[in-house]
Amino acid sequence: MVQATPTPEYVRSGNDEKRAVSDVRHDRGMRSATHAADPAPPNFANPWSTSPAANSVASTSGETPNTFDAQADHVATFSAVLGLSQVDVLGFSIGGYVAQTFTLRYPESVRRLILVGTAPRGGETEGTHPDVSRVARNPVPDLEDFLFLFFEPSETSEAAGKAFWERRHQRTIDVDPSSSEQTMKAQTSAIVAWREQHGERYAELSHIQQPTLVVNGHHDIMVPTINSYILSERIPNAELIVYPNSGHGSLFQYPDLFVSHAARFLDTNVAFS
Amino acid sequence: MVQATPTPEYVRSGNDEKRAVSDVRHDRGMRSATHAADPAPPNFANPWSTSPAANSVASTSGETPNTFDAQADHVATFSAVLGLSQVDVLGFSIGGYVAQTFTLRYPESVRRLILVGTAPRGGETEGTHPDVSRVARNPVPDLEDFLFLFFEPSETSEAAGKAFWERRHQRTIDVDPSSSEQTMKAQTSAIVAWREQHGERYAELSHIQQPTLVVNGHHDIMVPTINSYILSERIPNAELIVYPNSGHGSLFQYPDLFVSHAARFLDTNVAFS
Repeated sequence: MVQATPTPEYVRSGNDEKRAVSDVRHDRGMRSATHAADPAPPNFANPWSTSPAANSVASTSGETPNTFDAQADHVATFSAVLGLSQVDVLGFSIGGYVAQTFTLRYPESVRRLILVGTAPRGGETEGTHPDVSRVARNPVPDLEDFLFLFFEPSETSEAAGKAFWERRHQRTIDVDPSSSEQTMKAQTSAIVAWREQHGERYAELSHIQQPTLVVNGHHDIMVPTINSYILSERIPNAELIVYPNSGHGSLFQYPDLFVSHAARFLDTNVAFS
Repeated sequence: MVQATPTPEYVRSGNDEKRAVSDVRHDRGMRSATHAADPAPPNFANPWSTSPAANSVASTSGETPNTFDAQADHVATFSAVLGLSQVDVLGFSIGGYVAQTFTLRYPESVRRLILVGTAPRGGETEGTHPDVSRVARNPVPDLEDFLFLFFEPSETSEAAGKAFWERRHQRTIDVDPSSSEQTMKAQTSAIVAWREQHGERYAELSHIQQPTLVVNGHHDIMVPTINSYILSERIPNAELIVYPNSGHGSLFQYPDLFVSHAARFLDTNVAFS
């Protein structure tokens, strides 16, 4: 295990001390413009305590390790610092790579797993839009870049994208720091390694025993949607939900619907009942 | 349009005269043992009026047409007899073939569409279990046949299958009649034609403009699950939900969860919000 950041920084929201969702955020070179976790999601922060483990993925003032194994170890340390022996994990995009790795490395620490807009190790890249890597690396991504990467080129989807863009500027205190050059380089290395296949393709997914909810948009140009289908097919106890007319940012496009689905998944005593 | 059954027989349940779900049932040679629509689904009949249009698919004392076009015309006549100008349609299995056809032939008559355990015209057959056609044709299907066709060979899934088997024997009045030899032969002809591709594969799905919820079990050995993925990919405004550890009868395995998802889909003023 690598040495973890000695003083994790985090924002805690919600009012239920008994529930915690560890929200492993995405970035992939979007720097401060995304933060990907909806800063004002209706209902989601309440009734749960959300503990964004953003420090290991992006939006951090610390150092980001260049492997998902080490990032998963950070999540473990972070949970321990918070005194949480078991958490529900929400991993979005590359946060989903960390979440899968964390679940495989610390199976006892995860009760339920939500994977949004993400892919298995060695997943499918066919369907990735050729402009994604260029746009995602824009030093100061603007609204247009953001809509291209996270939403569909339709009136409905773009309207939802603009509404999200407004919401994410509502928070003025405790604003997450921008991703540093160091973070971006580390994530690029980690992603390149994640895309390689090792041994039997997708074999590790069969070891994820936790009830899992897999979510994506119908046409994800960053992490092709077929990867969500594969995750739900290979993880033994996984439900798949794919939202229409949406892309990588489906959870931002349908915040009420996503929260309703996630809440039902997390709140039942017996998963999927 | 073929001449419709002059006196449709149906069971009406629920207490909301303003809402109607036309429930196009499945059979495919299972005769009286399935009826596929859960006879005692928690919460679903109430608050909606459900109007099973079973007469055109199976469990009918009338004559079944041997094309889905003609069966869809029966649904139209049936809705007209009930005085319903627009309905929400739930089509399960081959009922989903009728529901798609009905939606394409009578687009103004359908508000929202739910497709469960079904496939597009000319869909994928790879993944169908080789024993399906033999078992599905058993003259008196028993519990074992039923579990094989509709559930997964796991403890959890089989327990849910047995619970469903109990529920479906609760109704003792207005019990649906068995499917006749005529119905079974007509459906076989209709299915053979449905499996053929005409022109550009899946092109007709782009004409389904209604908000659509596509549902299946994770491992459907009768109508392979990939078909649900294809439906949700090609229908312009479709959400996909795939339940874990389940097969063709996923809606019977997770009655509460299915009803909760379907209710949210049907009850919102703006679909998917």
